[in-house]
Amino acid sequence: MSLSFTISAPSLGLRPELQQKINQKTKPIGSLGRLEGVALQIGLIQQTLSPTLKNPHIVVFAADHGIAESGVSQYPQEVTYQMVKNFLTSGAAINTFCNQNKIQLTIVDVGVKGEFEEKQANFLKLKIAHGTNNFLEKPAMTEKECWKCIQQGSKIVEDIHQKGTNIIGFGEMGIGNTSSASLILHHLTSLKLVECVGSGTGLDEKGIQKKLALLKQADRKYPKNMKPFEVLCTFGGFEIAHMVGAMLEAAQQNMVILVDGFIATSAAMIAHALYPQSKEFMIFSHQSGEYAHIYMLEHLRVMPLLLLGMRLGEGTGCAIVYPLLESAVSFLNNMTSFETAGISESQKNKIN
Amino acid sequence: MSLSFTISAPSLGLRPELQQKINQKTKPIGSLGRLEGVALQIGLIQQTLSPTLKNPHIVVFAADHGIAESGVSQYPQEVTYQMVKNFLTSGAAINTFCNQNKIQLTIVDVGVKGEFEEKQANFLKLKIAHGTNNFLEKPAMTEKECWKCIQQGSKIVEDIHQKGTNIIGFGEMGIGNTSSASLILHHLTSLKLVECVGSGTGLDEKGIQKKLALLKQADRKYPKNMKPFEVLCTFGGFEIAHMVGAMLEAAQQNMVILVDGFIATSAAMIAHALYPQSKEFMIFSHQSGEYAHIYMLEHLRVMPLLLLGMRLGEGTGCAIVYPLLESAVSFLNNMTSFETAGISESQKNKIN
Repeated sequence: MSLSFTISAPSLGLRPELQQKINQKTKPIGSLGRLEGVALQIGLIQQTLSPTLKNPHIVVFAADHGIAESGVSQYPQEVTYQMVKNFLTSGAAINTFCNQNKIQLTIVDVGVKGEFEEKQANFLKLKIAHGTNNFLEKPAMTEKECWKCIQQGSKIVEDIHQKGTNIIGFGEMGIGNTSSASLILHHLTSLKLVECVGSGTGLDEKGIQKKLALLKQADRKYPKNMKPFEVLCTFGGFEIAHMVGAMLEAAQQNMVILVDGFIATSAAMIAHALYPQSKEFMIFSHQSGEYAHIYMLEHLRVMPLLLLGMRLGEGTGCAIVYPLLESAVSFLNNMTSFETAGISESQKNKIN
Repeated sequence: MSLSFTISAPSLGLRPELQQKINQKTKPIGSLGRLEGVALQIGLIQQTLSPTLKNPHIVVFAADHGIAESGVSQYPQEVTYQMVKNFLTSGAAINTFCNQNKIQLTIVDVGVKGEFEEKQANFLKLKIAHGTNNFLEKPAMTEKECWKCIQQGSKIVEDIHQKGTNIIGFGEMGIGNTSSASLILHHLTSLKLVECVGSGTGLDEKGIQKKLALLKQADRKYPKNMKPFEVLCTFGGFEIAHMVGAMLEAAQQNMVILVDGFIATSAAMIAHALYPQSKEFMIFSHQSGEYAHIYMLEHLRVMPLLLLGMRLGEGTGCAIVYPLLESAVSFLNNMTSFETAGISESQKNKIN
């Protein structure tokens, strides 16, 4: 099998006209700061001077991790299952923030240990297996499973896009998944493993040392210089692999992609390694409180919008940053221009 | 005359219970980062475990500055008048962002050169004079004028509070007013004037040097060690003095105060110098692209929520940060607790 996404970076032909429209708004040039860059990016993605954000949607992928059994997390593995239950009864942070900002939410079980009775329209049951293998023993998933993840992730986004969504964010739930993200970061960069491993949901220094020792032990079992797809198979998670497929499909559909924190950015790194152009569709919501996230952002040469020390996952960063994107699109569409409003432009500009 | 606000810092008695409520939400402790601190602050201001944000309101004060005639700004002075017209026809950035986030907007002419015919409910005409004096020649305003500003600012907030608002932000429009803010910063700290002066609406290096030379020349005319109220009278603006009165009244009414950028923070510095407890009611929206803003924030020992390089004023920072405050209040009120949701807490906590 081979990946067959068709992803082209947005044409830059419209850029001067978009920039001109931004500069003609009744404000000093550049004075809306990064909102201007966001407006420009969304305008280019949509290839229009008047972009819109339609039916924003967040998809949360949940799955368990074999490595969790070795004790890399502060929380017991059953919390993945319990938190999915919590999502389904609207009790979690992501529910709250999606309700607040009128973002549709879909929950997908792609590999949680345990079965769900719940049947509701926004809950998809697409379990690959009851958790990944423990990569201390063998690769987290087979190549075949990894392909299935990418295909399923892609299909979900295709369906959502067909219903009229043009902006999408991805969240995750999976006890143990900062371990996967750390190993992905380690293998896709020249960083040492110790630089990639942090406290996750709140390990103390002793816990971090134990986690690091386990991840080092696991890492020695596998070759260096694996290709991105192999890294993904080896260290998993099903939820991360789904996010890779979902992000690539979103880029293929010219959608705006909201990237969340540490885990979601590990998926973005894989997507970017496979299709570098996919990055042009991504807006990075926030810098996580998980320290190594900054290395991911530096590797991708991107700057997140928020720096609030959040480290919850679930797509919460995507959900709370969304109003800033609305602000960016809104000023571009709704502010008057100097000419229309009859307002004097800056004196320097008039002299030039 | 003397100031007669009664401002008490919120009692901290409720703090342990609020923190406990935050910690019991279904998320790792601290994982919502700075949203948790905002929730705590608003809970303490309102002295409740279930705070609410009611009828958010932004008041934009507009006034002209005598110093503008000496050429400290990139824009001609008539832009103040033109931009107020723009506010009144909903064409400016602040209109757009208030509409987006359902924030009420009031515009107040407190000293714009020129008369407005417009009569609309959200436009108050409370002109002190047609611009301040040029402080190169004499103090920007008399003590009597400054008192009137503080009283008018206070009265506006009192009226808004009586209509049921418990969160308020303040914006400003006034060509030349970064000069006032820079001089306030200089006089309220030990910083040299050169450290306090920046590009405002977009001066180039030559423009900044001219502005700095003019402000140095003005500064030499006045004594060092002036009291905060004297600093305000000397360097003005009417809009800044109104914001001081407005912020003090908002603190007196136990309202949440959203502080915008460089100019608004200069007013917050005066308010804080007069009533240090007023700071406990303030949430700092963003760090401005005007470089010296960081010194103001450091002086007040506060950390803004956003860092987006914005430098527009008008209260735009308050308007775009507002959804994050809603997120903070929303998670506190709407997320389930570990106990209610039947979710396992962290293993470390269980052992403790």
